[in-house]
Parts: sequence; structure tokens; C-alpha cells
Amino acid sequence: MGAMMKEALLHMLSENEGEFVSGQEISNKLNCSRTAIWKHISELRNSGYTIEAVQKRGYRLVTSPDLVTAEEVSLYTGNGTFGKKITYKSSVKSTQEIAHSLAREGAPEGSIVLADEQTGGRGRLGRAWQSPAGTGVWMSLILKPNIPLQKAPQLTLLIAVAASKAIEKVAGLEAEIKWPNDILIKGKKTAGILTELQAEADSIHSVIVGIGMNVNQQTEHFSDEIAQIATSLAIEGRQTYKRAEVIGVLLQEIETLYRQYLENGFGVIKLLWEARAFSLGKRITARSVTGSITGYAKGITEEGVLLLEDDRGQVHSIYSADIEIPSP
Amino acid sequence: MGAMMKEALLHMLSENEGEFVSGQEISNKLNCSRTAIWKHISELRNSGYTIEAVQKRGYRLVTSPDLVTAEEVSLYTGNGTFGKKITYKSSVKSTQEIAHSLAREGAPEGSIVLADEQTGGRGRLGRAWQSPAGTGVWMSLILKPNIPLQKAPQLTLLIAVAASKAIEKVAGLEAEIKWPNDILIKGKKTAGILTELQAEADSIHSVIVGIGMNVNQQTEHFSDEIAQIATSLAIEGRQTYKRAEVIGVLLQEIETLYRQYLENGFGVIKLLWEARAFSLGKRITARSVTGSITGYAKGITEEGVLLLEDDRGQVHSIYSADIEIPSP
Repeated sequence: MGAMMKEALLHMLSENEGEFVSGQEISNKLNCSRTAIWKHISELRNSGYTIEAVQKRGYRLVTSPDLVTAEEVSLYTGNGTFGKKITYKSSVKSTQEIAHSLAREGAPEGSIVLADEQTGGRGRLGRAWQSPAGTGVWMSLILKPNIPLQKAPQLTLLIAVAASKAIEKVAGLEAEIKWPNDILIKGKKTAGILTELQAEADSIHSVIVGIGMNVNQQTEHFSDEIAQIATSLAIEGRQTYKRAEVIGVLLQEIETLYRQYLENGFGVIKLLWEARAFSLGKRITARSVTGSITGYAKGITEEGVLLLEDDRGQVHSIYSADIEIPSP
Repeated sequence: MGAMMKEALLHMLSENEGEFVSGQEISNKLNCSRTAIWKHISELRNSGYTIEAVQKRGYRLVTSPDLVTAEEVSLYTGNGTFGKKITYKSSVKSTQEIAHSLAREGAPEGSIVLADEQTGGRGRLGRAWQSPAGTGVWMSLILKPNIPLQKAPQLTLLIAVAASKAIEKVAGLEAEIKWPNDILIKGKKTAGILTELQAEADSIHSVIVGIGMNVNQQTEHFSDEIAQIATSLAIEGRQTYKRAEVIGVLLQEIETLYRQYLENGFGVIKLLWEARAFSLGKRITARSVTGSITGYAKGITEEGVLLLEDDRGQVHSIYSADIEIPSP
């Protein structure tokens, strides 16, 4: 109840940005005592919010910290159902692990897990994902689509389209997609998507979508090993962004595309994806545990499989691989 | 160490079935004291083994109980690698849950979980599976195939073929397969397969195969609601069977087919499956959450999808459904 009250109070102050809201008005609307309001104001201040308090005028929100707490993110999730249920932790090993547990316990579709920092963030194929505190969006989203298992890879492509649209909307930057799950700005990795499943062979229980997005990192945040290939919205856009707003826009983009997808199928998503595809029509190398194939990336199939035509004209279906642009 | 010693002792006695094995021989071979042997003999007797002990002649295994403990099952797993790592519990909610945890912790391929009783055994689509103590095989097997997600349903069909072959081998009974995962004897359900995945959208981490097989149930073991549609090896074969042997044969059949499958693909499995298919060429109704379709079952695709031709000649791809034979 306390958390909901604090959230409602923050909503009131945010809606009246820059204006004073009287203690009486808050007390009436939230049906709570002046003492309770004061307690929540103190907590918000402790979290980094600057709130002015003036006798007889009330409270005024001056600045908000760049937090990804449930209170802050709920200011930006709009009218959709995604992000209505938020689990926030300041530091976790991996938001995916928590989301997997929540999904097993029956968490509803659209539930999200957010962390300010991940100490063991994971990328595709068990790789590490650097997730330092206070810099990026480290989020896991629970979906429960009634689709056959065979179509699950389509969701990675859908999320990639949504993420690139969100970047364009928030930062005005052009984002490209490298099959299957990397979001690039000017050829450097800005975001990654990890789509994991809890499934039977013929039905999906839950899809746990992990999204890591570099938002406010500066170059010095990246380790040497990725400094040349990674970037962030702040580096490319030359300003910082409110992570909670990025999350809100991202969730709305995902939900819109997801509803379209469930209603009308993969067709539209495929077109949107291809329009943003970094590697299509280019000469690429697809490298996997079983070997590597170089050729032209012709397109993706209805199942989200990459089609690669080698130099002898043979077309290979690539289910899982790393894509590289070979040096000329 | 104690468990391994007990297992080794049981192996010695079983290999010399009906013959005495001297305490000296056991002591030499297992490198343990006479007192340790006596302790393990007592434990085996407590578990239900009848072991004769005669001065100067040694020990003789007279009868074995119908157990599915690691010691007992290891007598029947042969030279394969499946079943080399056994987790046994007398009573569990579900062997699948334990196997999922073990897989997440990195258990090797071929690890199995066995229980004498499941109190919350699960079938496909979250349905209950009756698993009373001392009657059936309630097993979960961990596989780690390097195959695309799209091919996972093939594994259900592979396991179904192996299970029907095991039934034929152990009990000489003809077993048929009802798509996708039921094993029938004379039209009644004897076994079911639940194939669950831990996966990314483009790679499988683990497949957890649950197999429930009714072995020694008599009609009175079945609840009223399934008494008309369920049967067991014992009911059909008019004798009881050693569950540990059923498990051993089943694991060997699975491993053989699985190696063939990884080497040569689904082609041979598809033929074996079709030869045992209960519903192919018959008029059936496929019922799912989205509706039902009646028509002729034409076959399965390379992906394990059921093809159903309706009365207007349209062929439907069935990914997930319950199959019924409509009353004429």
C-alpha cells in the first residue's frame, strides 16, 4: 500500500510539473494524512528527487533522478498493459533469472523485471552482457503468446523492430538491426535481445524477452574488449536520456507491434524488419559452432530464418549464427 | 561412496544370480571390510531384497523387489550413457521439476530423474498424470541436442517410437502411437510423453523428456475418470514386469534412436513412427483451444506437424491438438 501511495504521489507531482500541489489536494485525492504525505516526500527525496516544500503552497517537483524504479517507470508506461506489473531491484545477477521464476509462478503477460545494475547479465548463447549501474536499460519482459514453437524466433525480430523504433522516437537516431538480435547505431552495438522460452514441444508457456540497451554510457564505461564495437544513445546523441522514458516508449512500441502480430501474423513485422536490416543484400559470413558460410544475405523467411546464398548459388537456411561483414 | 559400494555389491550378486558369492571375494573386489559388506547387505534387505547368508559360502541374491532406485536401475542400463546419472526419490511432486532444476545447474545429457510415486505428475498442456507408488515408470530424461528449436517436436515422436519398441521388447505387446504423444495398447493409453524445453529462440539449452508408463497397475489402480481409457503392461500382458528393466530397455531404445537421429536426421524416425501410428489414414477430429477440425490424417511433416485433410480437400497443419476418433 505504501509503494502504491508513493507512486500515486509521484504521479500527481509529475502531472503538475513545475507547479505546486497543495498538501490538502494530495491528502484529499490519495485519502491519506499530512504525516503520511511527508513521509513519502522524504522517501522520494532520499531516492534522488528534488522536491520543494513551501508553506501554504504545497509541494513542487523540481528534478527527477534517472531511476528505473517502479514509481518512476510507471510515469511513462501509458495506457498499455505491458509494464503494469513491475519488479524492480537495484542490483541483480540477471533480470532474466528473476523473470523466469516469476513466469513459472504464473506472472501475467506484460510483467517486467528491471534492475539498475546486473552483475551477471547474459546475452545470446550464454555470453556476458555488461550492465553497469545507472547507465542502461536492463529489462526482462514476460510474454505468453499462443503461437507454435516454430514461430518463436519471430518474436526476437519483432522486439528488434520495436527497439529500433523506440530509439528513433526517443533519441532521433537511426538504428539498424543485425540478424538476429543486435541493434546497431552507425554499425556499433547499442542493444541486444535475448529471447528465452519456457515451453512444451508443441506449446509455449512463457517467452522471457531480455533487452539490454546502452543508454547513458560514455566510452569509458565500456571494457577494452567491447569499446570498439559498442556504443550508447548518449554517445551517439550527445546528450543523456531518461531511462524510465526509454523503457516506457520501448514497452509501448513492443505492445503495439505484438498486438498487430497476434492479430495479423508476421507479414508486417517482416517488412518493418527488412527495412531496418543491416546485413540484407550484403556479403556476410555466418559463423556457428558447426562452421561458417560466406555469401549474400538474401532475406528472412516467414519463420525468421536467415537465407544466405553462397558463391555457388546454393541457398542456406541459417537458424543460429553470428553474422560478420568480411573484410574486403 | 556408500551408495556406490552398495550398487557395486548389488551388481556382483546380480551377475552371479542364484549363486553364492563369498565374503572374501566381495571384500577383495570392492576393497572393503567384512563389516562394511554386512552393513550394505542389511540395507539391501531393508529395501526389500532377499539375500541368503551362509557361513563359509557367502551371500546369495534370492529375490529382488520391484524398485526403481539408482542401484536397481543401474543393473539394466547396459553400455549406453543414458541413465548413467540417476537421481531417485521415493516420492516427489513431479520428476520434471527436479530435472528442470538439474538441467539449469548443468546436468549432463542422459541424466535421469526417477520416482516411485509422483504426487503432482504432469501430462501435456498442464494436465494431471496419475502416478501411484510402486506401479509405473515416472521418469524425466535430460537431452541436449544441437538442433534448431523448430525441430524439437521431432523428439516427442522419437521418444514415442522408442517407448513403443521398449513395450514390444519387454512385454511382447503391440503398442501404437496416437499423435503426438500417447502410447496405446489395444486403443487404451499406456504411456504418455511430455517434452519440455529450456531454450533461446534460436538454440536449445536442454530438452526435459517426461515419460509416464503404466506398468504394473491393475484396473482398480485407475480412477473412475480414466479407468475406461487407460491400461497397463500388466493388464494387457497378464503378468507383472520389473520396472527397472522396463526403464533400462527404454533408455537403450531411446539412446539408439537418438544417436541415429542426430547422425542421419528425422527420416528413419518418421518411417518408424508412421509404421506405428494409430491415427494415420483414419478419420479423426483434432480439437484445440481455437476449435476443432475433422478429416483424414494424411501423415506428419519433417517437422512432426500432423497433416489433416478436411472434407473439402483442404489440408491443415496441426501443431497442437487432441486427437479423437469420431463416433460413426
